[in-house]
Amino acid sequence: MAAWVPYAVAGIAAFCLAVAAVFAVLVVRQDPGNDKMRRISRAIQEGARAFIRREYGYVAIFMVILFGFITIALRSQSGWQTAVCYVFGALCSLVAGFVGLWISTRANCRVAEAARGGASRALTVAFRSGAVMGLTVAGLALLGLTVCYIVFEVVLGVWNSTNIILGFLLGASSVALFARVGGGIFAKGADVGAAFASRNDPDVPERDLHNPAVIADNVGENVGDVAGIGADLYESFVAAIIAPIAIASSGVVFQKLGAKAMILPLAVAGAGVLCCIVGTFLVHSRTGGRGAQRALTRSTYATGVLEITASFFIVWGIAGWSHIGLFYSLLTGIVAGIVIGLISEYFTSTHYKPVKELAKSAESGEVNIVLHGLSSGMMSTLVPVAMVALATGVAFWTAGRALKGAGIFGIGLSALGMLCTVGMVVAIDAYGPVVDNAGNIVEMAGLDPEVKEITDNLDSVGNTTSALGKGLAIGSAALAALALFAAYASAVGLTTIDTLTDYKFIVGLLLGGMLPFVFSALTLNAVGRVASAVAEEVRRQFRDIAGLKEGLEGVKPDYSSCVRSATDTAMYETLIPAALAVIAPLLVGLVLGKQSLAGFLAGALLTGFLLAVMMANSGAAWDNTRNLIEGGAYGGKGSRAYSAAVYGKTVGDPLKDASGPAMNILIKVMAVVSLLFVPLFLK
Amino acid sequence: MAAWVPYAVAGIAAFCLAVAAVFAVLVVRQDPGNDKMRRISRAIQEGARAFIRREYGYVAIFMVILFGFITIALRSQSGWQTAVCYVFGALCSLVAGFVGLWISTRANCRVAEAARGGASRALTVAFRSGAVMGLTVAGLALLGLTVCYIVFEVVLGVWNSTNIILGFLLGASSVALFARVGGGIFAKGADVGAAFASRNDPDVPERDLHNPAVIADNVGENVGDVAGIGADLYESFVAAIIAPIAIASSGVVFQKLGAKAMILPLAVAGAGVLCCIVGTFLVHSRTGGRGAQRALTRSTYATGVLEITASFFIVWGIAGWSHIGLFYSLLTGIVAGIVIGLISEYFTSTHYKPVKELAKSAESGEVNIVLHGLSSGMMSTLVPVAMVALATGVAFWTAGRALKGAGIFGIGLSALGMLCTVGMVVAIDAYGPVVDNAGNIVEMAGLDPEVKEITDNLDSVGNTTSALGKGLAIGSAALAALALFAAYASAVGLTTIDTLTDYKFIVGLLLGGMLPFVFSALTLNAVGRVASAVAEEVRRQFRDIAGLKEGLEGVKPDYSSCVRSATDTAMYETLIPAALAVIAPLLVGLVLGKQSLAGFLAGALLTGFLLAVMMANSGAAWDNTRNLIEGGAYGGKGSRAYSAAVYGKTVGDPLKDASGPAMNILIKVMAVVSLLFVPLFLK
Repeated sequence: MAAWVPYAVAGIAAFCLAVAAVFAVLVVRQDPGNDKMRRISRAIQEGARAFIRREYGYVAIFMVILFGFITIALRSQSGWQTAVCYVFGALCSLVAGFVGLWISTRANCRVAEAARGGASRALTVAFRSGAVMGLTVAGLALLGLTVCYIVFEVVLGVWNSTNIILGFLLGASSVALFARVGGGIFAKGADVGAAFASRNDPDVPERDLHNPAVIADNVGENVGDVAGIGADLYESFVAAIIAPIAIASSGVVFQKLGAKAMILPLAVAGAGVLCCIVGTFLVHSRTGGRGAQRALTRSTYATGVLEITASFFIVWGIAGWSHIGLFYSLLTGIVAGIVIGLISEYFTSTHYKPVKELAKSAESGEVNIVLHGLSSGMMSTLVPVAMVALATGVAFWTAGRALKGAGIFGIGLSALGMLCTVGMVVAIDAYGPVVDNAGNIVEMAGLDPEVKEITDNLDSVGNTTSALGKGLAIGSAALAALALFAAYASAVGLTTIDTLTDYKFIVGLLLGGMLPFVFSALTLNAVGRVASAVAEEVRRQFRDIAGLKEGLEGVKPDYSSCVRSATDTAMYETLIPAALAVIAPLLVGLVLGKQSLAGFLAGALLTGFLLAVMMANSGAAWDNTRNLIEGGAYGGKGSRAYSAAVYGKTVGDPLKDASGPAMNILIKVMAVVSLLFVPLFLK
Repeated sequence: MAAWVPYAVAGIAAFCLAVAAVFAVLVVRQDPGNDKMRRISRAIQEGARAFIRREYGYVAIFMVILFGFITIALRSQSGWQTAVCYVFGALCSLVAGFVGLWISTRANCRVAEAARGGASRALTVAFRSGAVMGLTVAGLALLGLTVCYIVFEVVLGVWNSTNIILGFLLGASSVALFARVGGGIFAKGADVGAAFASRNDPDVPERDLHNPAVIADNVGENVGDVAGIGADLYESFVAAIIAPIAIASSGVVFQKLGAKAMILPLAVAGAGVLCCIVGTFLVHSRTGGRGAQRALTRSTYATGVLEITASFFIVWGIAGWSHIGLFYSLLTGIVAGIVIGLISEYFTSTHYKPVKELAKSAESGEVNIVLHGLSSGMMSTLVPVAMVALATGVAFWTAGRALKGAGIFGIGLSALGMLCTVGMVVAIDAYGPVVDNAGNIVEMAGLDPEVKEITDNLDSVGNTTSALGKGLAIGSAALAALALFAAYASAVGLTTIDTLTDYKFIVGLLLGGMLPFVFSALTLNAVGRVASAVAEEVRRQFRDIAGLKEGLEGVKPDYSSCVRSATDTAMYETLIPAALAVIAPLLVGLVLGKQSLAGFLAGALLTGFLLAVMMANSGAAWDNTRNLIEGGAYGGKGSRAYSAAVYGKTVGDPLKDASGPAMNILIKVMAVVSLLFVPLFLK
């Protein structure tokens, strides 16, 4: 039964990619604006190309090493097939990242031009370009995974096919490490470096095409919020599909449901992708501003409701009415995702108490705003952590009632539920930097202030909605890592752990919990190094390129060289954390054993999740506090509160955009590595 | 056999208190200096009295509630006896805190006067006053506990006497909550508030007796670093003695060793106290500065070596040569304590790379120093966590080899080993604020600048050595909490936990891990509230008291009123975190069950420990960065780097002195509550 499901899912994924292509064509056909706008956009494109070329070079080296390692380490467990899946998984993610950067760096001038015709048109163009990325991420993840499944499970019927398919997930993780961690470091380094250069040297103009760092900064926006979050959620999505499959492939779930248990996650994911396609068509608004906000929110919720309905029927159809409890497990994830998103919005939006209070504390200076922001970020961990705990507990319980002993399968389904709307989430997130870039182009090209107002308005809409998306990215990373943890436990056969008479779990827990702190420290320092490199490069260009200092019209700085030096530093600085993320769990597993590794993963998951929420929400709260005061509150621009808020934002940005998101990747990568290399720890 | 040991231990404890009394007399007999110095000292004494009166009022209310709760909740398990032990444990801690504040607020002017006669004399007076506190803490903890043990175990021979004695520990915890958490909030609130008042109002002079907040600030120093750290280590010491007794009282250790297993921890603690007494006599130096540094370091190490030797013979004598492996468990704790102390020094002393780099980053401004300090603090968690993990692992393993199945007894012994030098550690820590206060008195009384130089010198010695003590306080809190956790696990009979097929452990882990973040947020906010209250009170006094504004000679502000308003706010703000620390584990245990509670404790222990290390080291590093630059590096006072460093210190102080230390208490209190109320969760 249901043998056709994988093929149908592959079909949906292919259709999703086709829709993305159509959106891409629609965007590119728009008027790219006047000569100066096109020139700026081309400079950003050139910078993005330079970044991609360098980044992908580093990824390639990393991939070659891991390819060799997988082939050798797992040689008795179809190592080379796993390695092939690994490369395939990584390539799909690289392609998605490339497509996302390609379209977002082309959409920026087109959105700027469209904004001259009103907010409604600009929204449509910007959102479509975001949707290209969203649908590509969802489509490629699903298509790649389903193809692997069909080849190894259905066609070849390999015995331990799940293990082979896990290679696909590790591929996703490898790319995410560089795209999200390295990309985040690059983005913030460029941002801080650009500010640094113009602050320390009065010759270097801010937001002017003669400043080479300006383009690096714009590229950074796209790299962080398009390619970075895309790779992050691509990894989470793949993990959320694979984890329940891996759990189902052995043990009690397989005995009761057979292959249906493995098909169920694929079918749910397929339905999710279909719902996202529908969701993207729902986004259009007649008016700008509030209308745009409503359009995005409405479509997001509509997608969620569709998804819930579809899941219900899928569980009913595939697992049967007697196992409808599995649907509730899915539901816990969907609900938790929404609540986490809403609470992120509460703690970071200018409309609610936390940011308003933060703005008030800005009045009493830089010390207060930093302490207050930190404490607000720490407080904001309460609900997300409680929600993940609740979702885990309820999902375990309902799945266990539906199918005795299937509790951890329920945790997998919960993660999947949270991630099914991934296409929509990425679309909304990728919309942000496009609008932001468009605003910069409007400013640099000297267009009408009214146009700038329209893009600013769309930008603030993006900020609010992306808080939802970012909260979801963190929550889903935690839940996906939990699901992988459950799969790991099931794979090593740790049904019970001697937690207490055996010190090994606790030792692992301590070591694992410490790692996210070390990882954060490394990424924070890396941002500082990239910023110095960028500032240095700007100084060099102002010294060496004649006429740049004087701001002559025809003189152009070497944007690519600036991007290259930033990328090189960022990627180099990513190597150690990346290696740490892969090697640490291997070492713990090999030296201290599988029980310590379980503790290690649990500890890292816990502190990584907490730091991610705290850093993201503190950072976003500072950012929006500045926006709030810039908008006129507490004296507006130029006031004492404003300078404190700007200060807060500068402290918060590296936390929010580099170290915080890196946590998502770290906890997933370590879980993936542990799960994939289980055979090594069982020897 | 060895029936006389408890009596001998009680004798040692009484002797220890006698030595403390002698030191106190020697200090008080010193010349308190000229009239103005005495006046300042008296104002600080008056403030300390006002603080104590208020604080102890709050503690009393809290105690009454807990007394009732214990009596009723444990009525079928000798509830009222436990409640009596509870009050006794709390009273001993309150007395120790009172004695510490009494002597330190009297020693300050005497140290200032002695400094006029040279560094050597001043060191002796200051250290003796610290030793009064150190020996009182160690002596009262040991005496109280041994008395409880003798009464219930030896004389009455009650069946579950260990459970009753646990009440003593909860008493220690209750006082620590208010002394360390509330005291830290008070101290930093007064500090920030004093700075605030004089910054915002040019009429309010800094470091002048006409500013009422100045005295509150000086009181705060004593409250935080004398009474606070005293109560903290009192609690840890009691926990480290009780945990192995509780573990030994049942299970495999008792079967093999009988009552000897319970006497062993008492004997080791007694020997430790004796070593500390010897250690305090070793502190004297002929020269100041480096000589003082050497004197303190030398005595600390000598105490450690004595302690190791004594433990070896005690284990041999009581447990026999065949169980000498238990000595290695003790040794792991001693070694881990020293390493953690040294690494704290490395990350926070002006002599090493981290602070030097931080000072360099100060040159590029406020943003960099904050980010760099945070990342340095996060990086500094690596070694302490690894050391605690290592100590736990090795202690478990060696104890298990010495006595099959006695692994968790080894964890208890490891904690005990780390805490045996508690008398010395508290002595050195309590020395710090005395010297600091003396310096303030020298300045305010307008003494010779040379005298100020001497006290400054002794102060910087104190800073370095107290880094060791503070690192040890954190490490020992973690290890003591781990030992209590092990005792809890043993008490509820969780030899194995269904960690993975049962979601309950993970749910507890997530919730527990989140609590320290919420707790930190609450304490950080509380500091802000106290600061506002202090600033408000200063403004009020300058408005209402005639002549204060003009700085007339005879006019005195109302110091007590200022201290009272700060204390009230601080204690009120402590109520919610304190209640949380007691209620949260009870709720988790009752609602989610004993497995969730185990996860809850493990999670809280993990993140609480990490945050404590990070906050303490970031804060101390910023503090010493300012000292380094003040001493002339990077442009010295008045430079751009200096103002950034001052800024960093201001951000760091509340982390270092309020939120960070609060973590120590939180993780211990929750473990104590869980262990004591085990009968409720077993129903």
